[in-house]
Amino acid sequence: MAEKPTRDDKFSFGLWTVNYNGSDPFGGPTRAHLDTVHVVEKLAELGAYGLTFHDDDLFAFGSTDAERQTEIDRLKQAMSDTGIEVPMVTTNLFSAPVFKDGGFTSNDRAVRRFALRKVLRNIDLAAELGAKTFVMWGGREGAEYDSAKDIRAALERYREAVNLLGQYVTDKGYDIRFAIEPKPNEPRGDILLPTLGHALAFIETLERPELVGINPEVGHEQMAGLNFAAGVAQALYAGKLYHIDLNGQRGIKYDQDLVFGHGDLQNAFALVDLLENGGPDGGPTYDGPRHFDYKPSRTEDETGVWDSAAANMRTYLLLKERAAAFRADPEVQEALQASKVTELSTPTLGEGETYDTFLADRSAFEDFDANAYFNGKGFGFVRLQQLALEHLLGAR
Amino acid sequence: MAEKPTRDDKFSFGLWTVNYNGSDPFGGPTRAHLDTVHVVEKLAELGAYGLTFHDDDLFAFGSTDAERQTEIDRLKQAMSDTGIEVPMVTTNLFSAPVFKDGGFTSNDRAVRRFALRKVLRNIDLAAELGAKTFVMWGGREGAEYDSAKDIRAALERYREAVNLLGQYVTDKGYDIRFAIEPKPNEPRGDILLPTLGHALAFIETLERPELVGINPEVGHEQMAGLNFAAGVAQALYAGKLYHIDLNGQRGIKYDQDLVFGHGDLQNAFALVDLLENGGPDGGPTYDGPRHFDYKPSRTEDETGVWDSAAANMRTYLLLKERAAAFRADPEVQEALQASKVTELSTPTLGEGETYDTFLADRSAFEDFDANAYFNGKGFGFVRLQQLALEHLLGAR
Amino acid sequence: MAEKPTRDDKFSFGLWTVNYNGSDPFGGPTRAHLDTVHVVEKLAELGAYGLTFHDDDLFAFGSTDAERQTEIDRLKQAMSDTGIEVPMVTTNLFSAPVFKDGGFTSNDRAVRRFALRKVLRNIDLAAELGAKTFVMWGGREGAEYDSAKDIRAALERYREAVNLLGQYVTDKGYDIRFAIEPKPNEPRGDILLPTLGHALAFIETLERPELVGINPEVGHEQMAGLNFAAGVAQALYAGKLYHIDLNGQRGIKYDQDLVFGHGDLQNAFALVDLLENGGPDGGPTYDGPRHFDYKPSRTEDETGVWDSAAANMRTYLLLKERAAAFRADPEVQEALQASKVTELSTPTLGEGETYDTFLADRSAFEDFDANAYFNGKGFGFVRLQQLALEHLLGAR
Amino acid sequence: MAEKPTRDDKFSFGLWTVNYNGSDPFGGPTRAHLDTVHVVEKLAELGAYGLTFHDDDLFAFGSTDAERQTEIDRLKQAMSDTGIEVPMVTTNLFSAPVFKDGGFTSNDRAVRRFALRKVLRNIDLAAELGAKTFVMWGGREGAEYDSAKDIRAALERYREAVNLLGQYVTDKGYDIRFAIEPKPNEPRGDILLPTLGHALAFIETLERPELVGINPEVGHEQMAGLNFAAGVAQALYAGKLYHIDLNGQRGIKYDQDLVFGHGDLQNAFALVDLLENGGPDGGPTYDGPRHFDYKPSRTEDETGVWDSAAANMRTYLLLKERAAAFRADPEVQEALQASKVTELSTPTLGEGETYDTFLADRSAFEDFDANAYFNGKGFGFVRLQQLALEHLLGAR
Repeated sequence: MAEKPTRDDKFSFGLWTVNYNGSDPFGGPTRAHLDTVHVVEKLAELGAYGLTFHDDDLFAFGSTDAERQTEIDRLKQAMSDTGIEVPMVTTNLFSAPVFKDGGFTSNDRAVRRFALRKVLRNIDLAAELGAKTFVMWGGREGAEYDSAKDIRAALERYREAVNLLGQYVTDKGYDIRFAIEPKPNEPRGDILLPTLGHALAFIETLERPELVGINPEVGHEQMAGLNFAAGVAQALYAGKLYHIDLNGQRGIKYDQDLVFGHGDLQNAFALVDLLENGGPDGGPTYDGPRHFDYKPSRTEDETGVWDSAAANMRTYLLLKERAAAFRADPEVQEALQASKVTELSTPTLGEGETYDTFLADRSAFEDFDANAYFNGKGFGFVRLQQLALEHLLGAR
Repeated sequence: MAEKPTRDDKFSFGLWTVNYNGSDPFGGPTRAHLDTVHVVEKLAELGAYGLTFHDDDLFAFGSTDAERQTEIDRLKQAMSDTGIEVPMVTTNLFSAPVFKDGGFTSNDRAVRRFALRKVLRNIDLAAELGAKTFVMWGGREGAEYDSAKDIRAALERYREAVNLLGQYVTDKGYDIRFAIEPKPNEPRGDILLPTLGHALAFIETLERPELVGINPEVGHEQMAGLNFAAGVAQALYAGKLYHIDLNGQRGIKYDQDLVFGHGDLQNAFALVDLLENGGPDGGPTYDGPRHFDYKPSRTEDETGVWDSAAANMRTYLLLKERAAAFRADPEVQEALQASKVTELSTPTLGEGETYDTFLADRSAFEDFDANAYFNGKGFGFVRLQQLALEHLLGAR
Repeated sequence: MAEKPTRDDKFSFGLWTVNYNGSDPFGGPTRAHLDTVHVVEKLAELGAYGLTFHDDDLFAFGSTDAERQTEIDRLKQAMSDTGIEVPMVTTNLFSAPVFKDGGFTSNDRAVRRFALRKVLRNIDLAAELGAKTFVMWGGREGAEYDSAKDIRAALERYREAVNLLGQYVTDKGYDIRFAIEPKPNEPRGDILLPTLGHALAFIETLERPELVGINPEVGHEQMAGLNFAAGVAQALYAGKLYHIDLNGQRGIKYDQDLVFGHGDLQNAFALVDLLENGGPDGGPTYDGPRHFDYKPSRTEDETGVWDSAAANMRTYLLLKERAAAFRADPEVQEALQASKVTELSTPTLGEGETYDTFLADRSAFEDFDANAYFNGKGFGFVRLQQLALEHLLGAR
Repeated sequence: MAEKPTRDDKFSFGLWTVNYNGSDPFGGPTRAHLDTVHVVEKLAELGAYGLTFHDDDLFAFGSTDAERQTEIDRLKQAMSDTGIEVPMVTTNLFSAPVFKDGGFTSNDRAVRRFALRKVLRNIDLAAELGAKTFVMWGGREGAEYDSAKDIRAALERYREAVNLLGQYVTDKGYDIRFAIEPKPNEPRGDILLPTLGHALAFIETLERPELVGINPEVGHEQMAGLNFAAGVAQALYAGKLYHIDLNGQRGIKYDQDLVFGHGDLQNAFALVDLLENGGPDGGPTYDGPRHFDYKPSRTEDETGVWDSAAANMRTYLLLKERAAAFRADPEVQEALQASKVTELSTPTLGEGETYDTFLADRSAFEDFDANAYFNGKGFGFVRLQQLALEHLLGAR
């Protein structure tokens, strides 16, 4: 049985997650706002180690400096009282009417300037609170109509903004890295940098690419029908998994933000296996926060909120346990060999082999028996998948 | 641990499933054809009870009468030798060039007549072999372009065909019912009767609706992003679940035909729970064949074929075991009560209550406290889902 | 050039459409509420003939009787002043917290009773205002989790509710028919009666099926990847197109509610062609309101609201013009013949032909040359589609 | 009316497109193979300028050297006779059984070596024929099951292969660039480099990134629900649009490969506008081949094949004409200004503005009136979209 979560598990939650009031496109709130201090205390009690937030989660858009400071001070006190950390901070550039066409890439230059100032201010706060990651979800950066947005200009403005932020944290000496969070659509018809691939490509155009990685979210990639675990593997390959958003999504539809594991369970298993056991030594590939960005269902009251928060962590730990057993099973090891999964790590060319020697190797081509792959040389992938499934089901 | 499959589990396989040669839109066969007798023997050995087929699976399109009879006789002998039954037969109206615009609803009347004759002949064979269900998958009934097909005329032709078939089996005294298998697209851009709902609606227009039900397939409904277990529940509600096709699909994409459970595992769990424990007494809601309509992955050789066949059955039995434990868990029972899942079976109006007395009940409206549902009266659905998940994971 | 809309075009708008305030899952309102009288006047000015509404659009949930009556009276006066009709009314069973698990099928029986009373009251208002159609969109009837809802019990409760409503309007002598509006998901993970097919099937289980049809919405079917024009054709085939919701959707994603034609343009063309020219005489197949259920984009201010309202009507009229030209083009007529589109209306069996004579017709099967369909007998569908496209583009 | 295509339009076709025999997952060929010389002659006659091919299109997999050379010589003669060029060549690493788990990233090292040799040989042929672009579609590089493929190892092998190819063409002095063609799924459950974003990111990890760009395909991006025109804009932003595959796709489903424009027409319009008028001077952004990668529908015979080939070019030219009129319309220009589309090209910071001066600008933040965006400052995007639509419809 999975153990209780501890601080070492590095589970963190967005303030906006447990504090989601239940409003959606067809209905208003079903729950009252929870006080930040209460949230911090409850998360600590449940075993989380971190809280994250958008500026507007902590103090309402348009707060006076005094109101803002009050909320910051209350949070700091709660952190001190509970040991809860703030590993990540992010900025809301999507809720207020001023951002109706985006922040960094609004067609309206005055809005872009306002957005950039809002972010700079929030970076100072992030540094003050000790956050190491600054997430940027550009949910309003996009369009519903193709002629309404010059995509190349939008990318150039996004680049301008991130370059400025990079210069700012460098000059200030802040120990902060940025993580871009992609999403294909909703609330815009099409969003800039719709998948983690697009974000990774964009990062390479920046002045300080080393400062910027990604914060992929389970549901966001799955809203494009993409394999989340495979995408995270590409992010790891690029050295760019700076943060991660865990939740659940049931296919290509609106952004569901279910509890982690309450969506595509097999891919969640593959993901945990990758994060925990995917390193060359079989150890973790990622040591940052396991951050839950989910919404307690609108049908729930506060009891359901905390039940759902606990469910995220418990599911993660159960999958971690299942993944460890999967890796430890000798039959699985044998099946991985049989399927040549491990052989893929062997370079295709031999050590020191050039294309000249390779072209001269008749066994590679002229004498190679391609026909042997008809009715033979099966890969055994279904057997391997069934082994994974049975470990997931706790049936081995 | 789940037991081995037995004949009582009523597992059946399409001849075309284990015999799939691996060809797909971008590649040819990777496996040779398996002989029918060998297939029957292997399925019997693995614990299946039934084999199903399209006419063209057993004897190639265009076979002479003698060739056809030879294959039928060989099948009969294999059935007799192994005890394997043929609970269902179906007709291929989609592979040959003549069916390129469909069978029953081809724009070409001569094709429609040919298709209908092909089916009538196959019904005689179905009856001869003792099949009780005759499936109709109209995979080519459809169009790529909106003006290429008069949908209402197509429905009328489909209706004409099924009415004729109904009259035929009635007159012949065959103990056969029909089951329509819906699919939204592929190989046509849009297929007639794209979901089980559309098929159920169509059936009500027939002369003998009692003779016709549906054969829903996991992947086909999921290709439209629909909840398969919920759809099957509506089919059961309508008394129309005459047959079922089990397989796996990972989201909205091409038809994957994976092993059952190798797709949306949570919905597979819900489905098995519905089929096995969904009756009013907690017993089965469906007692027909558990029919696997899947394709062994193209990467596999014959070993992988039989591994995958076994995996279908084993996964079903594991899910059945998990579902039984879920239903037996007192905490689950309590959670179902707390979520009022069971209260939905209580009629909304009291016994004998008319709309007059209902309108006079001030407690129902004027004095009803709708505000109590804000910040209270949570349904506890997330907790219930987590209990289901933990049973699925074998973690309770 | 398309003419201006007139009352004869029967264009109607939901009060909630032009009055949408711009709030969505990630942001609050960007526009103020418009007064109902102002809306009525503007719609009349733009050429619409009808206004529709949910009870809560006209008077807020929880209004006193006096507040409610004031708004009703103001609407009546505006109708009288402008000639605007109210052809359809519907009830909001999805926004208030009390409906968080649905209305007619909430697990909570008290909620179901409250919902039913809310609807009965609103039917009286619909009758009073002369509405002939009463739409039921059960957007909250559904679940996020498979074990949270007993689908068969939900269907039974939905049936109980609609049966009661049918009895009520019958007894009261109201000239009102009901129209169920299907949707696959959002705001619930899965919604009951997810497609128009499921709704058509459900209607057949009712006590008074003749009183109940459907109100399909472009975007809702397209959210399941289904062909809207084909679905509407099946509804027409079943005699169940009682109302229609026109808007635009760009693929499988959240419900976009764009202007009609701003989504899948070719399918919009096919739809208008079906509605206007699809009858056996080439005339309309549907003579009810052309109802726009869309949302002016959140980026717009009131000018954009009315621009978008006008755009819906103008696009419809342009497509109507294009469809008329398409049908009138002799080359199109020839192409339809060549593609045998019209031949599909000829019964497959000859007049008086029985299955006995059919089975005896060797030309239909034994002597039929199926091979002629290889490398010959092409249907010419691509040419037909290109003709449709060029008419759509105004290029012929 | 659009003019006839000429060589200056740079329309090219894959040999596999017009030569598609109609086979699909549920049916065999409906058309015979066309001879290459005949294809070249017909394409020239219709106005195309180029032919492209996979090695296995021109000479069957497993051909002897002599058979191979015969087909090459016949092609060269036909090129010489007609003036048709071969601007692009690609390699088939997906059809033969040997590639059942992929080519460059098969788990089986011997297969990887064979694949690389097959490609090297084909590059020599490409150079010989004067092709400037070498496309790599890794359709079999992927997996159905998460544990069956080590994604990071697969990326490393893909990288090893492309690095070798880059070294090879560099050393040989070939004037050839590579273009990676992404696809999310089909024929594999999930394909490596599923979107153009993922491919762009991968290219940055190569030794010679300047030699490698992308070949995005309309349908492939749309199979992930992504906006194709927006994606191409990002490719242009990255300087990586080395080739393009034009076709049509109707939403998220199997790969349809319809005629260009027979899918999402509005996005096709936006794409042509981007390619033809998207440059800073209003000129083209891309001057390479307009390459059609489509399949004549399986319902067609050879007449339909050539009708569909012509339809691709005609639709492109019609959209080009519509796009020119759109850009030339003064009302459109005014609407673009009103929507501030052009303002997005103005940098957010002023010339010489540093973050210090920016932070000191009170007008940007402290004194900025964010509230003015509520109920005002609408962007007018719906009006702009309606203008685009009406130009597309030829109604202005």
